[in-house]
Amino acid sequence: VRDTTPGVAVVNGFPCKPAAMVTADDFKFAGLKNPGNTNNVNKANVTAATVIQWAGLNTLGISAVRIDYAKGGINPPHIHPRATELLILLKGELYVGFVSTANVLFATTIYPGEAFVFPKGLIHFQLNVGKEHALAFAGLSSQNPGVQQVAPALFTPDIKDEVLEKGFRIDTKTVDMIQAQFRV
Amino acid sequence: VRDTTPGVAVVNGFPCKPAAMVTADDFKFAGLKNPGNTNNVNKANVTAATVIQWAGLNTLGISAVRIDYAKGGINPPHIHPRATELLILLKGELYVGFVSTANVLFATTIYPGEAFVFPKGLIHFQLNVGKEHALAFAGLSSQNPGVQQVAPALFTPDIKDEVLEKGFRIDTKTVDMIQAQFRV
Amino acid sequence: VRDTTPGVAVVNGFPCKPAAMVTADDFKFAGLKNPGNTNNVNKANVTAATVIQWAGLNTLGISAVRIDYAKGGINPPHIHPRATELLILLKGELYVGFVSTANVLFATTIYPGEAFVFPKGLIHFQLNVGKEHALAFAGLSSQNPGVQQVAPALFTPDIKDEVLEKGFRIDTKTVDMIQAQFRV
Amino acid sequence: VRDTTPGVAVVNGFPCKPAAMVTADDFKFAGLKNPGNTNNVNKANVTAATVIQWAGLNTLGISAVRIDYAKGGINPPHIHPRATELLILLKGELYVGFVSTANVLFATTIYPGEAFVFPKGLIHFQLNVGKEHALAFAGLSSQNPGVQQVAPALFTPDIKDEVLEKGFRIDTKTVDMIQAQFRV
Amino acid sequence: VRDTTPGVAVVNGFPCKPAAMVTADDFKFAGLKNPGNTNNVNKANVTAATVIQWAGLNTLGISAVRIDYAKGGINPPHIHPRATELLILLKGELYVGFVSTANVLFATTIYPGEAFVFPKGLIHFQLNVGKEHALAFAGLSSQNPGVQQVAPALFTPDIKDEVLEKGFRIDTKTVDMIQAQFRV
Amino acid sequence: VRDTTPGVAVVNGFPCKPAAMVTADDFKFAGLKNPGNTNNVNKANVTAATVIQWAGLNTLGISAVRIDYAKGGINPPHIHPRATELLILLKGELYVGFVSTANVLFATTIYPGEAFVFPKGLIHFQLNVGKEHALAFAGLSSQNPGVQQVAPALFTPDIKDEVLEKGFRIDTKTVDMIQAQFRV
Repeated sequence: VRDTTPGVAVVNGFPCKPAAMVTADDFKFAGLKNPGNTNNVNKANVTAATVIQWAGLNTLGISAVRIDYAKGGINPPHIHPRATELLILLKGELYVGFVSTANVLFATTIYPGEAFVFPKGLIHFQLNVGKEHALAFAGLSSQNPGVQQVAPALFTPDIKDEVLEKGFRIDTKTVDMIQAQFRV
Repeated sequence: VRDTTPGVAVVNGFPCKPAAMVTADDFKFAGLKNPGNTNNVNKANVTAATVIQWAGLNTLGISAVRIDYAKGGINPPHIHPRATELLILLKGELYVGFVSTANVLFATTIYPGEAFVFPKGLIHFQLNVGKEHALAFAGLSSQNPGVQQVAPALFTPDIKDEVLEKGFRIDTKTVDMIQAQFRV
Repeated sequence: VRDTTPGVAVVNGFPCKPAAMVTADDFKFAGLKNPGNTNNVNKANVTAATVIQWAGLNTLGISAVRIDYAKGGINPPHIHPRATELLILLKGELYVGFVSTANVLFATTIYPGEAFVFPKGLIHFQLNVGKEHALAFAGLSSQNPGVQQVAPALFTPDIKDEVLEKGFRIDTKTVDMIQAQFRV
Repeated sequence: VRDTTPGVAVVNGFPCKPAAMVTADDFKFAGLKNPGNTNNVNKANVTAATVIQWAGLNTLGISAVRIDYAKGGINPPHIHPRATELLILLKGELYVGFVSTANVLFATTIYPGEAFVFPKGLIHFQLNVGKEHALAFAGLSSQNPGVQQVAPALFTPDIKDEVLEKGFRIDTKTVDMIQAQFRV
Repeated sequence: VRDTTPGVAVVNGFPCKPAAMVTADDFKFAGLKNPGNTNNVNKANVTAATVIQWAGLNTLGISAVRIDYAKGGINPPHIHPRATELLILLKGELYVGFVSTANVLFATTIYPGEAFVFPKGLIHFQLNVGKEHALAFAGLSSQNPGVQQVAPALFTPDIKDEVLEKGFRIDTKTVDMIQAQFRV
Repeated sequence: VRDTTPGVAVVNGFPCKPAAMVTADDFKFAGLKNPGNTNNVNKANVTAATVIQWAGLNTLGISAVRIDYAKGGINPPHIHPRATELLILLKGELYVGFVSTANVLFATTIYPGEAFVFPKGLIHFQLNVGKEHALAFAGLSSQNPGVQQVAPALFTPDIKDEVLEKGFRIDTKTVDMIQAQFRV
């Protein structure tokens, strides 16, 4: 169990709480109980249960997320640099997929009870293509999977325009237009 | 993706299917869709989605299970020698727990939407203590977690009685009685 | 080398002693020299040389134990959640075995000079079936292998009786009887 | 050393060549000797020395690349899902950077003899901002690092437009325009 | 369990024998039973129980050796590139040691029942400094630890003399003299 | 990024600097820019860029070195206990090689632009056999590879003469002579 006392030295992973102070509650997590707020630009919400939110996962090599999607909601193209993700759809209809390092798209539509797996470190996404809200749970193969949203990673920070123009083969105006969407 | 052609050499893990033959369907799994049959002695059923059932998980470091519990159903004390398990309860009420190597019990009751984590290699269990069926999904931190049921492991095979008598501090008659329950 | 100063933050594994303070004595361990006291209910004694007893093993990925068995002594069914064990018998005659995840027993009798290996995370045991004391040394593939004794893990802590009754298919009275043996 | 005979079963990693057939030449690689052809849309060329090109790297946990950049050349935003990259600049002037999972840009300009490191699984790039050709060598912490080019991964395969529109917050016309650049 | 059938493809590690053909005997090894022949130049003999001799160790992460030393016998400076070694002395008196990467010697004399640990990848040795034969068993933290004898590695193969002269700061004559000792 | 504040507890690997204090400069390293001083007994110089010199490499699994060789310069037989090394020659002509655990020499001469790989934990060397200075860069598959120089490891510390005499099959006088070369 991670020691969350402020001031405790940050190490690779996290230091552990003294064994005598650990209780069953450290291994329980209620934070996935309630629907996330989908009232945002993506019309979707990822509620995470990683070692950051749930100290009891420290060193255990697994974490989970709950994803709520309003109608048309998207979990946009992103990467987990340290984890594979195995998603189980409970409600709704999702268009899911990832792209391999050979630039091949593996995408399909899944229905309630179906699972899909997104291999570690590859760009992947889910889009609610059904007529209702959708709900999924996913397990990730690290207690600290990390997430990098592709578009915000490139269009929020102040990367030289030339990188984005040449990287996406677009002109300065288009770069500015996309950046405007991702900067508050 | 695991190559499931019969006759393909068994290696550590499994050999991979040629990349050109892999499709999106390899990364999709429908086997968790339906409730497992709980009409058995444990009144519970674990439906697995590991590399054994789902070849697409090969090398990816994660797997999942669906667990259905009838009223009073139990997933009896068992071990996953190669994986931590993170369980999310969807319906019902479960008494869940594991025992640490210091012989300390970490057990509690969880309710819908709550999660609990069972660290790798430790004896753990779930018991349906609610008035209805219960349903849980769990992620495991290996594509091939393995499972060892404690009581059947010891009382099904033909281990010398002396090991069981001394191990459980019971007499021959009690050993025979328990063995009779686990042998068909 | 593990820093054993009280008050030093507990981390994953253990922090290391400053290099300048490390001496050859840190890599030497005399604790396996003497026979363990077998005057106990199991008539056997495991003397451990893991990072807990021998700070110099920190980060090195190996540990050892000495096991003394009086006549009829048992090292009862147990698990090392983090290590394979390779045992070498020096004196006596041992019935040794483990159960696989397919519920298959691999057991045999070994004689002085013979070795047996117990794969990581599986229930295993040794029973002295000879007419004399027995003595074995074993190496374990982790500096901190951990050990979980199956019967005490289940019958010492206060697990709900229902779990044990259903798990072992025994009645309340038998549960109470076994618990009485394992509680002091 | 990887066995490259056609027909040899593909496994996790690759099977090894029989030891008796291995020679010093298996551990030598001449493929990084010559400048890559930078006469392409990125005005840059990555010449790889991974287990795919150099069988002797099998199981060894490292690989290398040579990167030639014409004036204004770019190694566009990309990810190595299985490796950290440590780049050493030999000639020219590069604007280099990566974005963290906290969406923070770490970018700077480097000069001959300077090194920069791109952590595993994160989007990174290099842009020749000097007045001449540039030349860099880089080591990668896996014999099979893999590479995923961000823009081509998303705009070459036939992902549903809606994913790209919502992911990049652009309209259909802009999606089509970018796709046109990446499809031949 | 390693499949030792000739012709079976060599992979990283080794392929596994079909599960149905595995028996308890695969996990037992009698090869350490008898004293090794110390009638050789080192007056010592290492009897190995690694995956090469004992197929059942495949994938299990541990191996063992038995070392017999005649009076004055030496296990000369050597390295295990893939394992830490934990040695337990049963008979005799050994001068044991290793050198750290900071060029610091950690050496001492050990007596029966004492253990010493040689960290992975570092040059180490044992010398029988007692008046009798000595006997030790050791565990190694890999099923395939490998061993490289320092002097034979450098003075048996036909390395250019200049490397040995400059490496050991000796003249051609001394190189030739040492080579003569190690070449048959 | 490693926290280099004096007094910070030393752990396995190193603790990390607080994320908010990390800048792009932490991931940049200028220490390989200048030729090392080859005015020494080996006529060669290794300039290291490991986590010891470059805190930003902490946890990243890679490091690098620059090696300058004067005419006749040698990087004498040594071992990296924790890393494979991939060397790229930029200038000059090097005789490079390593010895396998089967005591087989894999050696050859390489020319500018050619690469050679030295597997983890095996004795290896490079000798400048050209008519000019030589220059190489190498990547290593660990942020903290460690290095053990074979001859100094054995002939600098005060190892009992008997170990060296028997290990190298030389007499006391030769041991003393070699030791005199390595002790200051």
